[in-house]
Amino acid sequence: MAGVRLSARQRPPRHPDVLSPLFWTGERVAILDQRLLPQEERWTAYDDADDIVRAIREMEVRGAPAIGCAGAFAVALAARLNPPAPELRHRMRAIASARPTAVNLSLAVHRMANALFSDGDPIVEAEAIWEEDLAACRAIGAHGATLLPDEATVLTHCNAGALATAGYGTALGVIRAACAAGKRIRVLCDETRPWLQGARLSAWELAQDQIDVEVIVDGAAAHFLSRGEIAAVIVGADRIAANGDVANKIGTLGVATAAAAFDVPFYVAAPSTTFDRAAADGSGFPIENRAADEVVFLAGQRLVSPGVGARNPVFDVTPARYVTALVTETGLLRHPYAL
Amino acid sequence: MAGVRLSARQRPPRHPDVLSPLFWTGERVAILDQRLLPQEERWTAYDDADDIVRAIREMEVRGAPAIGCAGAFAVALAARLNPPAPELRHRMRAIASARPTAVNLSLAVHRMANALFSDGDPIVEAEAIWEEDLAACRAIGAHGATLLPDEATVLTHCNAGALATAGYGTALGVIRAACAAGKRIRVLCDETRPWLQGARLSAWELAQDQIDVEVIVDGAAAHFLSRGEIAAVIVGADRIAANGDVANKIGTLGVATAAAAFDVPFYVAAPSTTFDRAAADGSGFPIENRAADEVVFLAGQRLVSPGVGARNPVFDVTPARYVTALVTETGLLRHPYAL
Repeated sequence: MAGVRLSARQRPPRHPDVLSPLFWTGERVAILDQRLLPQEERWTAYDDADDIVRAIREMEVRGAPAIGCAGAFAVALAARLNPPAPELRHRMRAIASARPTAVNLSLAVHRMANALFSDGDPIVEAEAIWEEDLAACRAIGAHGATLLPDEATVLTHCNAGALATAGYGTALGVIRAACAAGKRIRVLCDETRPWLQGARLSAWELAQDQIDVEVIVDGAAAHFLSRGEIAAVIVGADRIAANGDVANKIGTLGVATAAAAFDVPFYVAAPSTTFDRAAADGSGFPIENRAADEVVFLAGQRLVSPGVGARNPVFDVTPARYVTALVTETGLLRHPYAL
Repeated sequence: MAGVRLSARQRPPRHPDVLSPLFWTGERVAILDQRLLPQEERWTAYDDADDIVRAIREMEVRGAPAIGCAGAFAVALAARLNPPAPELRHRMRAIASARPTAVNLSLAVHRMANALFSDGDPIVEAEAIWEEDLAACRAIGAHGATLLPDEATVLTHCNAGALATAGYGTALGVIRAACAAGKRIRVLCDETRPWLQGARLSAWELAQDQIDVEVIVDGAAAHFLSRGEIAAVIVGADRIAANGDVANKIGTLGVATAAAAFDVPFYVAAPSTTFDRAAADGSGFPIENRAADEVVFLAGQRLVSPGVGARNPVFDVTPARYVTALVTETGLLRHPYAL
């Protein structure tokens, strides 16, 4: 049940040059524990679907496209044991609901259900989902890079990077592609409280690629936007409604309203697996609330005055009017959206 | 040079019911070390101006009105040693420049210079500055309380409370006065990275007064503003230009732009000692940049990926158009401002 510990610096067998937070080793699903980064690069290989559900719920793996891939592999692992159909359906529902906000997870589980219904090989289908996500990220990067000037400082929030996808990243994929095209891009990363995905994860993976990156507290984003120092904001998404409303990591909405106030373009980079076309707008998106202790404590240290609690919604919804363009694998989409 | 350690729960001799972060004991200046709150209430009594300059610079005492009072006492301590005039002027310049952004500090030093020129008793003058600040906060509270409905959730940022003033507070003074008038006020405090003045200080002092308070990460402010849960935002100020532009703790500008986006009134509560009428607008305000390590490390723990740095501006400037009203000791002022 606990998985097999692997050595550091694991890479996908078919893409040995790609940093990926999870992939199929040929026998198991290898997952990088993102809670421990950047201090430790700890990999575990799982062959039990329940372990992957726990890994998603506890944020060992996170990022909407990445948890879609993880969910697909979890279904494949559950299915290859050939359980009775009601038991498999029960496990698939548990996988789809491991976290509520990212739509990629339930989309991947539905796609796996269709493959199983057609007697497809579940591992082959999960690997296809993973491969398509990597390809989508590369395409997003190519489309998005055209939006950036030859020399620019870009602001990002949370981690919409290689670590949030099969590899390469969405928002950070755009930055990677721009740098690969010879553009001189400097990145300011919001630290992204409470989990610090910007300070820990985006800073880590950009520095590994020798991309110029500095961290700011989330509250400093509006200051830099107001000073004309930022050419563009690029973030990822966890769910996008048909009208273009975007659910993403808590703090995204504040960056979007500040960007609008100071006329800085605000781009959302996401694969079409993030679209929730059944939602007319974002008003009904499920917003995950996590434990108050994620705000109150950091590394065992109490940050908040004793006896005082915290509220911890971990996503927010940015209205489509604040989104200058969506960058997807098929190209750029602009407001007004009709996805 | 190091001061005299006092017991916990020190209160000003003339106002034994008032929580004040610094006051004249009759012999020395007692200062509460706000870096240690809420874990420890450590008081030290100083009789050397250099110690107070260090206490201001290292944020043992912080908050624009409070550091104005601290600066006044520092001048008084320096002056009563009767140093040669050039030496006293040199020390007064060092006091006035201990921190750059809050204008209250240099205003207090100038007022002390005038008192010394008129052969006034410097301790009496410093005590008058302190008493006037306490009275201004109570008046700000009375004026501001009229702005709040009988039942409301109010969002605040940083600590514009008793701990930031001689006592009672500016933004939190408004909340105190509303509660004292029987209004049912719930407070959401931004934690206010990097120093966590909201989580540590505002939460601590509001809980001591049995005021209902919860903490959120800074990035969550826009989410709650967008959901119609917040009746008003109230913050303090470190410097206000003649046109109403407001310098305040980093993160204030982002709250202001989000409040404007979702039509939530945004109030700034500050005594007139915070006005910098020599500044036509906020574009030339000195913005303090502090060490990157204040962002990178927390309680000895590294938050940011190794090898990656941080930028740490600790104030931002909110344009006057985002300020619904200024709450001062003389009443409410509304846009357009001409201070």
